[in-house]
Amino acid sequence: MTFSKRPVKRTTEILLGHGSGGRLTHELIRDALLKKLDNPVLRELGDSAVIDYKERIAFTTDSFVVSPLFFPGGDIGKLAVTGTVNDLVMLGAVPEYISLALIIEEGLRVSVLEKVIDSVARSAKEARVRVVTGDTKVVEKLAADKLFINTSGLGRVLGRRRLTLKNISPGDKIIITGNIAEHGLSVLAKRKGPGLGLNIRSDCASLAGLIIPLLEKTRAIKFMRDPTRGGVATTLNEIAEGAGLGIEIEEKKLPLSDKVRAASELLGIDPLYVANEGKALLVVSRQEAEKVVGLLKLHPLGRRAAIIGAVTRREPGRVISRTLFNTERVLDMLVSDPLPRIC
Amino acid sequence: MTFSKRPVKRTTEILLGHGSGGRLTHELIRDALLKKLDNPVLRELGDSAVIDYKERIAFTTDSFVVSPLFFPGGDIGKLAVTGTVNDLVMLGAVPEYISLALIIEEGLRVSVLEKVIDSVARSAKEARVRVVTGDTKVVEKLAADKLFINTSGLGRVLGRRRLTLKNISPGDKIIITGNIAEHGLSVLAKRKGPGLGLNIRSDCASLAGLIIPLLEKTRAIKFMRDPTRGGVATTLNEIAEGAGLGIEIEEKKLPLSDKVRAASELLGIDPLYVANEGKALLVVSRQEAEKVVGLLKLHPLGRRAAIIGAVTRREPGRVISRTLFNTERVLDMLVSDPLPRIC
Repeated sequence: MTFSKRPVKRTTEILLGHGSGGRLTHELIRDALLKKLDNPVLRELGDSAVIDYKERIAFTTDSFVVSPLFFPGGDIGKLAVTGTVNDLVMLGAVPEYISLALIIEEGLRVSVLEKVIDSVARSAKEARVRVVTGDTKVVEKLAADKLFINTSGLGRVLGRRRLTLKNISPGDKIIITGNIAEHGLSVLAKRKGPGLGLNIRSDCASLAGLIIPLLEKTRAIKFMRDPTRGGVATTLNEIAEGAGLGIEIEEKKLPLSDKVRAASELLGIDPLYVANEGKALLVVSRQEAEKVVGLLKLHPLGRRAAIIGAVTRREPGRVISRTLFNTERVLDMLVSDPLPRIC
Repeated sequence: MTFSKRPVKRTTEILLGHGSGGRLTHELIRDALLKKLDNPVLRELGDSAVIDYKERIAFTTDSFVVSPLFFPGGDIGKLAVTGTVNDLVMLGAVPEYISLALIIEEGLRVSVLEKVIDSVARSAKEARVRVVTGDTKVVEKLAADKLFINTSGLGRVLGRRRLTLKNISPGDKIIITGNIAEHGLSVLAKRKGPGLGLNIRSDCASLAGLIIPLLEKTRAIKFMRDPTRGGVATTLNEIAEGAGLGIEIEEKKLPLSDKVRAASELLGIDPLYVANEGKALLVVSRQEAEKVVGLLKLHPLGRRAAIIGAVTRREPGRVISRTLFNTERVLDMLVSDPLPRIC
């Protein structure tokens, strides 16, 4: 063991000792984390945070293993904050507190970690959440790939209404809040390198600003889920199975940028199965669906919102898609994935 | 991409597709997780959980990267539950809910995962916490070492009293709840193989049953922290620095099993720097210290509880140890660690 009372010389690479729980860990936390994420709860530096709560709270967790760490439109830090924030928002909760747990591969450049933490700090500020507790582990080279992040989140649930699958009835409309498939294709394009000529930015964004005011304006929303891993098709399958009802969508109504359409054709990838990180699927009562789309369009993140389908009694548990050629196909749930480590 | 509406044939190894968010992920979660961890909140299988809370809550997070996954007295699953439970208990909170996020290396045997989840379920039941939300990611071979677990936890804070460093004053006594250094040496012995002839079991245990009733019986406890990574010496340094006071301990008062004493001498490792996973350091008012030790000894986890030192005005921020040879040495904080991935 190595001991020292005095600060140790700063290194440019993460050492195994940064995970020892001792002096190096303390200095890493102080220099690379606390300065960026400072708030009164975190400053106490306990292993846990105490939070005053008087209401119903939503609680979520997500690990992020995206490779590469940086991609057009985002990075693992932004993704970790917005992903957890969005899970809370989907439950109708105002995100308030998150935790930040790092698993770092020995040898990671400290500057890379600092860049990620900058992004965590910026994203947390934008989403109005505070990082109140955290953890840092370091594993030896090749025992992890650079950096994994877990964020767990707490939010205050709005009102007494529960947004559960049980609320869904036949006739309800399915709304998507914007263009699909941008996150997955952005990460894929970054992996394949610039030679592919794809210039797609991830849609990675906090949905709190789009969705929370909407929930305060209308009671028409019955259920929400963000179509991340597995894409829109997989999330619709979860909804259909969970509600015990069918879902029909029309592919011509799917909002899709020209770039994503071109890239999907080039790569032979169905955009319905590609991850989104700044979109929500909303199940909304039929009468209010147009109004909800109108409200969504007022926000920068909702400009391309559209009704893409409806809930039916036909084929419970299945998702049917009317294709651009006016034929029908069953949209099954994804089994495996050509795009692992997309988030 | 691979699609299927029907259940896919069960595999004995984790595939990358188990992390796709699609059918394989769903079946893994259903078969390997839900059956073991079932409760009404988790059964809804949303990305988050909604919890009714009317009080102050404690919130904590910890990732576990211990290698090997199984060791005498515990495994990564038990460690993940008890580690997070203990962080909540140290704040004077009754642990109630935890999240479970898995990062799995492709190729891990499903039977190994199931064994770990069995242990999570058993430990959660023992600690009276419910696993209410989770996440599963799979990374390709060599991008992680077998299995990492993050658990975040929520607990209800007892009473209005805050157990903070600010409560600590000169004259307070330092209590350890039992024998030290067992977790770290157990994992180390397992790594070195049976040839070493060490038969040390990890002390890995939930402290809720020992500590929560104690907090209800006495107001003498001013601060608590569990001496995990970095051991008793590092945790005492955190307390001394945080409180701006000195701490003096007497090595002859440290409870230590004969096996741990022998192993420490054999390996040349100072037990004061070795991780514990079922012990707490308590800072207690002088007048009540003997009474608190008496109460601790009534519980199986507290039989070896002892007063090991006191808070002083001398040398603020430093920890001084009176050795077995009646000399003094400064116990610095650990800088690096010969035992990485101990938790």
